[in-house]
Amino acid sequence: MALTGVLRPGFIQIRVLDLAAAEAHYVDRIGLNKVGTGADGRLYLKAWDEFDRHSIILRKADTAGMDVMGFKVASDADLDGFEKRITDWGLTVDHVPEGEQPGVGRRIGFTIPSGHRIELYASMELSETHPPIENPHVWPKEPHGMKATRFDHALLYGPDIEKNLAFFTEALDFALAEKVDTPDGVLGIWLTCSNKAHDIAFVRHAEPGRFHHVSFHLESWMDVGHAADIMARYDISIDVGPTRHGITRGQTIYFFDPSGNRNEVFAGGYIHYPDNPIRSWGPEELGRGIFYYERRLNDAFLSVVT
Amino acid sequence: MALTGVLRPGFIQIRVLDLAAAEAHYVDRIGLNKVGTGADGRLYLKAWDEFDRHSIILRKADTAGMDVMGFKVASDADLDGFEKRITDWGLTVDHVPEGEQPGVGRRIGFTIPSGHRIELYASMELSETHPPIENPHVWPKEPHGMKATRFDHALLYGPDIEKNLAFFTEALDFALAEKVDTPDGVLGIWLTCSNKAHDIAFVRHAEPGRFHHVSFHLESWMDVGHAADIMARYDISIDVGPTRHGITRGQTIYFFDPSGNRNEVFAGGYIHYPDNPIRSWGPEELGRGIFYYERRLNDAFLSVVT
Amino acid sequence: MALTGVLRPGFIQIRVLDLAAAEAHYVDRIGLNKVGTGADGRLYLKAWDEFDRHSIILRKADTAGMDVMGFKVASDADLDGFEKRITDWGLTVDHVPEGEQPGVGRRIGFTIPSGHRIELYASMELSETHPPIENPHVWPKEPHGMKATRFDHALLYGPDIEKNLAFFTEALDFALAEKVDTPDGVLGIWLTCSNKAHDIAFVRHAEPGRFHHVSFHLESWMDVGHAADIMARYDISIDVGPTRHGITRGQTIYFFDPSGNRNEVFAGGYIHYPDNPIRSWGPEELGRGIFYYERRLNDAFLSVVT
Amino acid sequence: MALTGVLRPGFIQIRVLDLAAAEAHYVDRIGLNKVGTGADGRLYLKAWDEFDRHSIILRKADTAGMDVMGFKVASDADLDGFEKRITDWGLTVDHVPEGEQPGVGRRIGFTIPSGHRIELYASMELSETHPPIENPHVWPKEPHGMKATRFDHALLYGPDIEKNLAFFTEALDFALAEKVDTPDGVLGIWLTCSNKAHDIAFVRHAEPGRFHHVSFHLESWMDVGHAADIMARYDISIDVGPTRHGITRGQTIYFFDPSGNRNEVFAGGYIHYPDNPIRSWGPEELGRGIFYYERRLNDAFLSVVT
Repeated sequence: MALTGVLRPGFIQIRVLDLAAAEAHYVDRIGLNKVGTGADGRLYLKAWDEFDRHSIILRKADTAGMDVMGFKVASDADLDGFEKRITDWGLTVDHVPEGEQPGVGRRIGFTIPSGHRIELYASMELSETHPPIENPHVWPKEPHGMKATRFDHALLYGPDIEKNLAFFTEALDFALAEKVDTPDGVLGIWLTCSNKAHDIAFVRHAEPGRFHHVSFHLESWMDVGHAADIMARYDISIDVGPTRHGITRGQTIYFFDPSGNRNEVFAGGYIHYPDNPIRSWGPEELGRGIFYYERRLNDAFLSVVT
Repeated sequence: MALTGVLRPGFIQIRVLDLAAAEAHYVDRIGLNKVGTGADGRLYLKAWDEFDRHSIILRKADTAGMDVMGFKVASDADLDGFEKRITDWGLTVDHVPEGEQPGVGRRIGFTIPSGHRIELYASMELSETHPPIENPHVWPKEPHGMKATRFDHALLYGPDIEKNLAFFTEALDFALAEKVDTPDGVLGIWLTCSNKAHDIAFVRHAEPGRFHHVSFHLESWMDVGHAADIMARYDISIDVGPTRHGITRGQTIYFFDPSGNRNEVFAGGYIHYPDNPIRSWGPEELGRGIFYYERRLNDAFLSVVT
Repeated sequence: MALTGVLRPGFIQIRVLDLAAAEAHYVDRIGLNKVGTGADGRLYLKAWDEFDRHSIILRKADTAGMDVMGFKVASDADLDGFEKRITDWGLTVDHVPEGEQPGVGRRIGFTIPSGHRIELYASMELSETHPPIENPHVWPKEPHGMKATRFDHALLYGPDIEKNLAFFTEALDFALAEKVDTPDGVLGIWLTCSNKAHDIAFVRHAEPGRFHHVSFHLESWMDVGHAADIMARYDISIDVGPTRHGITRGQTIYFFDPSGNRNEVFAGGYIHYPDNPIRSWGPEELGRGIFYYERRLNDAFLSVVT
Repeated sequence: MALTGVLRPGFIQIRVLDLAAAEAHYVDRIGLNKVGTGADGRLYLKAWDEFDRHSIILRKADTAGMDVMGFKVASDADLDGFEKRITDWGLTVDHVPEGEQPGVGRRIGFTIPSGHRIELYASMELSETHPPIENPHVWPKEPHGMKATRFDHALLYGPDIEKNLAFFTEALDFALAEKVDTPDGVLGIWLTCSNKAHDIAFVRHAEPGRFHHVSFHLESWMDVGHAADIMARYDISIDVGPTRHGITRGQTIYFFDPSGNRNEVFAGGYIHYPDNPIRSWGPEELGRGIFYYERRLNDAFLSVVT
């Protein structure tokens, strides 16, 4: 495949109420590595198997939620190309200068119909602790905590997700992997710019710009079980799981960070190709689509967001 | 990412000495499903998690080996585009009419510098037993045998693999994920057209057109262990493993089909992005690169091919 | 250790409303093997890794529940010894002649304080399909369905479980591995006659003779996940799980057979020795003791029994 | 079962050439916890899931090997009973006073026909870091390194192993789980005093008192794979594996400590009961019995001992 355009979810900036508690949660428990603290107090983290400088940014604020999700694109020229396509599609693009995040080049930003801020960027410094590349070992140092390998995706809640679908497929070349249709219209969409079953997903919600969860990839169902042991041992609040999603087939636990932001650990899921048929779910099987073993939604799934 | 051009390894045609023994091996043991037998006697198989009609083709012959490896491209127009690029690059392209394989559209074929035949095609019928797409279950029926999920990649042996590298990256937009350099030049290359660590790989060898192995993807190291149990129980000849490759980080067993063709079952491995640095290995660590736990090659790795 | 006296839970006779539906459930889904049907219509089953003729007996009846749980003892002389000890302890012993179950020798039976019938026997024919013993393979044939390896234990509900505790430890030489204490007295006891964390367990309940669940052992948490996939695929009702018990540390799913009898699949758990301290739980942590990840009981745990 | 008499392998004292290197190996890599150093310089270690004060003792010496293997018995009275039975059987018993190892009561010792020293003892202090017993978590602190859960068993080499078999079954009430017969007599015996497939094993060897390996239990094949990653990462010498034993069905890696003592990590294996038939192997299948996947012995298995 020509791997051009949008490559992957590259960073997410999350608001937390207490930075020290958040650091303990994301570093000691989820197993991220601390990169450093910026001059403005933002905390930068990365997973052990990521090459770029950082992927998770924690900002102290009075309310929890997501500030912005950033996608890396293949080249600086892509930034100009996407700016034109996004503007042509009808969104307003602004510019974030190089260095606003340490080690990150210029970014373009815009608000999608569901009310979320998305940014694109083409360059980020290589991490000083990226996976080794010369006669590399499997890992330089044993992963710790839940052993998250990467920032995998986010699920966002807001209105007008059909417009989001049009935008991501028309302006950013994403593919629709799965969707949930209801008599009231599309309830959820799972979008991919890769061979992963999803890189970003949206669920219809009255309030714009809401954050359902940020997901961290684990290597296997065994690691999902180990993550659950860590959650019980350290009294981390579990929303649901260990279970499996029907949608994406991912094995999962939803849980909460100390500020109330939902996290997910995620393993498995199929490999996606653009010639795969779209997988679709109706309202009668929505429960099984979301929580495959329980076969019903819990109350929190559609209501608890930050 | 714009998922255009070459999508994935789509089929491989393997020569076997005894079709009935091969069917028992690939269907009952590896866990493929039988699609049917063509008018010319070729046997068509597929893995349970693949959408297209078939992926493995077994042809009765007097010698073992690989006839051809086929890659699916995203559109019929891509076939014309690639024909021009391949011809411009300097290879001769021939045409295989629609229907030469049941359910498969027109193909273009060519011989790469290492002496292997590669084909491209844009269309294959959906399998009658493809993974379900409406309110889908994780699998329609429990996978059996070694539970192979897909035809994953092949490793081929031949001369002039630097030219193969140039061809695949320049004419087909593949990326080089890993390579082994020796004082005598490049010994091995691992090429990807996706987020997989490799879709095709080559090792330098004096004789052209040789076949090292066809690889089947398993979900986890647990399934690799289960596959080893099946091999011991049914007296399938193991070459090496269970072990891990340093290169690609895949967890693996090499074993042989009844005709002497090497097979691999494979799990794990990292996710690849085109902005990842190339991982490189020198001759002093080649053993660890190939067999991470043994840290040395076995005699068969460089010599036993079909 | 001198492995004398009571060896293990050897059989359990369960009442089902529909034998054909029960056979499909226990054989096709849980993965037991059918041994045969007795002259009186009882259906005999066994797990693949058990040596004796049968372990699960299904009897058609108008109500679900458990008829009897049988423990195998080491020798025929033990039967006489235990008859005396049980009678001395204060229970009435009756006799079941050889052949009442096909292939099973004479049994002695008695009703314990909680109202359940327990039997002891010293001999059962070896299964025709017992695990191989001469140059044995890991399994003679790949396990199927949920791949249950054995009938592991049962949890029973009834009154007077402190008396059960006294009986099992004083008359049958069991050890108490774990217990739950409440201000109202002992709520639950987990008893072992082996290195397993439990071979039988009791929870206090107003009605005598009630059946909470029969448990089948699986090899790992991976198999627990596979079992959950089977339950979702074939629409088997899940009570709770996949999760872990704090008590016994077992990884578990509770689910229901077509007659409403609760089943469990179970993996992990510690190895128990008689010099281990007893593990104890108070009411404030009971939820975590039963369902370690959820940290609370579901409504069904204390109320739904057969 | 009446769990009386010999309970389990309780400690093993191993000779190492360099204590600091050994501590790094057994603590940082295998994942044992350091208990402390005795006045005579011996280093005491334990696995995280053991209750007693220590299980592994490292003594600095000029040659590698095993000094003694100790079994815990159920009561002090058992020590007297076994002393009489052992003496009656024909071995000479000596006495080791309380406190020769910190926290350990009086021991009786004797040399078995194969030339190895075995000791019995009835009391050892509880570890300060034993698994929690009041509202216990699954583990108090995440296991590290290879995550060994316990000292599991040892395999010893020496002459007269038929006499060892007679001694362990007649004087100590062990059961024979598996054996290898050859035209020259018994080649190997696997003995159990529990529900484990083996607690001690012997292979026939010309020289008395030789040490083949000490084995550490892991929870699953996934952990066996993780252990192999650690061995490759930290350049620990692997003898063979990851593989499976046909005998005991255990999933295994043999590797070496810095002094050349062979270690094993071990998962799986069946549950043993005294009424199980003995599993027997002939010389033609010995390779498969020892290394189930390779189906042949490596040169080191019968020759490399300390």
